[in-house]
Amino acid sequence: MPTVIECVPNISEGRDEKRVSEIAAAVRAAAGVRLLDVSSDSSHNRSVLTFVADAAGVREGVRALFDAAVPRIDLRQHSGEHPRMGAVDVVPVIPIRGATVEQCVALSREIGAEIAERHKIPVYLYEDSASSEKRRNLAEIRKGQFEGFAAKMREPDWKPDFGPDSPHPTAGVVAVGARPPLIAYNVNLGTRDLAVAERIAKSIRHLGGGFRYVKAMPVELADRGQVQVSINMTNFRKSPLHRVFECVRSEAERHGVPIVGSEIVGLCPAEALMMAAEHYLRLERFSSEQVLELRLLEE
Amino acid sequence: MPTVIECVPNISEGRDEKRVSEIAAAVRAAAGVRLLDVSSDSSHNRSVLTFVADAAGVREGVRALFDAAVPRIDLRQHSGEHPRMGAVDVVPVIPIRGATVEQCVALSREIGAEIAERHKIPVYLYEDSASSEKRRNLAEIRKGQFEGFAAKMREPDWKPDFGPDSPHPTAGVVAVGARPPLIAYNVNLGTRDLAVAERIAKSIRHLGGGFRYVKAMPVELADRGQVQVSINMTNFRKSPLHRVFECVRSEAERHGVPIVGSEIVGLCPAEALMMAAEHYLRLERFSSEQVLELRLLEE
Repeated sequence: MPTVIECVPNISEGRDEKRVSEIAAAVRAAAGVRLLDVSSDSSHNRSVLTFVADAAGVREGVRALFDAAVPRIDLRQHSGEHPRMGAVDVVPVIPIRGATVEQCVALSREIGAEIAERHKIPVYLYEDSASSEKRRNLAEIRKGQFEGFAAKMREPDWKPDFGPDSPHPTAGVVAVGARPPLIAYNVNLGTRDLAVAERIAKSIRHLGGGFRYVKAMPVELADRGQVQVSINMTNFRKSPLHRVFECVRSEAERHGVPIVGSEIVGLCPAEALMMAAEHYLRLERFSSEQVLELRLLEE
Repeated sequence: MPTVIECVPNISEGRDEKRVSEIAAAVRAAAGVRLLDVSSDSSHNRSVLTFVADAAGVREGVRALFDAAVPRIDLRQHSGEHPRMGAVDVVPVIPIRGATVEQCVALSREIGAEIAERHKIPVYLYEDSASSEKRRNLAEIRKGQFEGFAAKMREPDWKPDFGPDSPHPTAGVVAVGARPPLIAYNVNLGTRDLAVAERIAKSIRHLGGGFRYVKAMPVELADRGQVQVSINMTNFRKSPLHRVFECVRSEAERHGVPIVGSEIVGLCPAEALMMAAEHYLRLERFSSEQVLELRLLEE
């Protein structure tokens, strides 16, 4: 099986289309890289690039990204609603096929070391790559943001994993780490009562006693006259789509509310949908080797 | 989207491994062809090759197949349990992605014309490519088998679509046609009572008043102490997996029998499983463009 690793770097530029497209073009041109998506948010002033490659390709893509982004983004001039600490803010490295979490952790360390060496940018390893429990959580690392990092880095707890002991003057710092694929998944309920969505969100999310790898919140869909449970699945292999869906269904039923539909926002790995088909059809001995299109991805 | 067409020719050789592997090697070497599977059955004395390619690749693969198979297989010497009429017995052309049924019908006609021209083998178009209702059904065309074809072809109804009016002396005749992907799908029941499987098979199959694109029969699984409804899905887009599964479940329940599991035998298109996930998760606005691995198949 050929290796498929996904990389979804977030950069602190979401308004200047020319700059974003120059940076995207640099990534697209890197050897072995398939750039699948670029989404910019102007109120966040931030863009998310999605590309896939094998390990060598991810290294090439990230190198091209930094070479293009560092001279083009000056955090001293940056404002936006989303918290940020770097010109390239975060580089998630995500195993999809033929790569283990361990291999992606090792890859993230190589990438981190290279960024620090090449651009003199401090690097924090996060999520599965974190060097301490405290650094698993990106929000924890990012606290203080770009403006606060010079002070934060003087604390012994916040010495970076790679690179200098003070932020890069224009590019700040960056978090790099391996993590499972994220799936943005919403379930729409046949009611206008936001309190029902709120109770269900609470019951399924980790913080409320629900699934370990589920974050959820209620959202009003005014135009549809419905409410939504908006879900972030941070590890669909351990907290799968169908299990969360069934839990939402059971909780909604208890309130006499039907599920009208659900939606996957953006990209998701085939495995997440295969797992649902496997569950509901009660498939025995099923293997993704049996899926014609997935066989075509093999060498 | 790049075109993915599946071609699963059946050849009348399933005992001589050397011959089968020489023929398979010729197909594998054809430009643009991905040979995914070769299965031989020695009691049938027959092998099934599965390859995928775009339209030009399918033409190349079929040409290579005939060039290798015709000199190596002499039907005058052939015996086996499976009915057959040709050295290459049947060439199904199956749209998977980015190709319509109409395009595969056109392709099957080009292939048929070339086989007739190059090897002087009579060609019958079948299934979606059939030139008359009677020729849709492969079993109908094959009646009389190799030994009976010289006589059969004297009837005006059985003039071939391409090629000479009498069978090739060693290679017989061949059927070529476009058809939807076949899925072999079995549902295992928690009972030893074959009569239950028989009643369910009857209720879901087209002949018994069931789904239009479903063939089904009961099978005893002695080693498991269970019975099985063994299903051939001849068009999963119109009679989908999940609908057939739910019908089997409802019929089984009426007999107080649980579904223990189900299985997909061999390859199936991703779409069949996506449709099940989409149904059970009640997905709205879902597109296969959102599946990361399927995106990788695009150019």
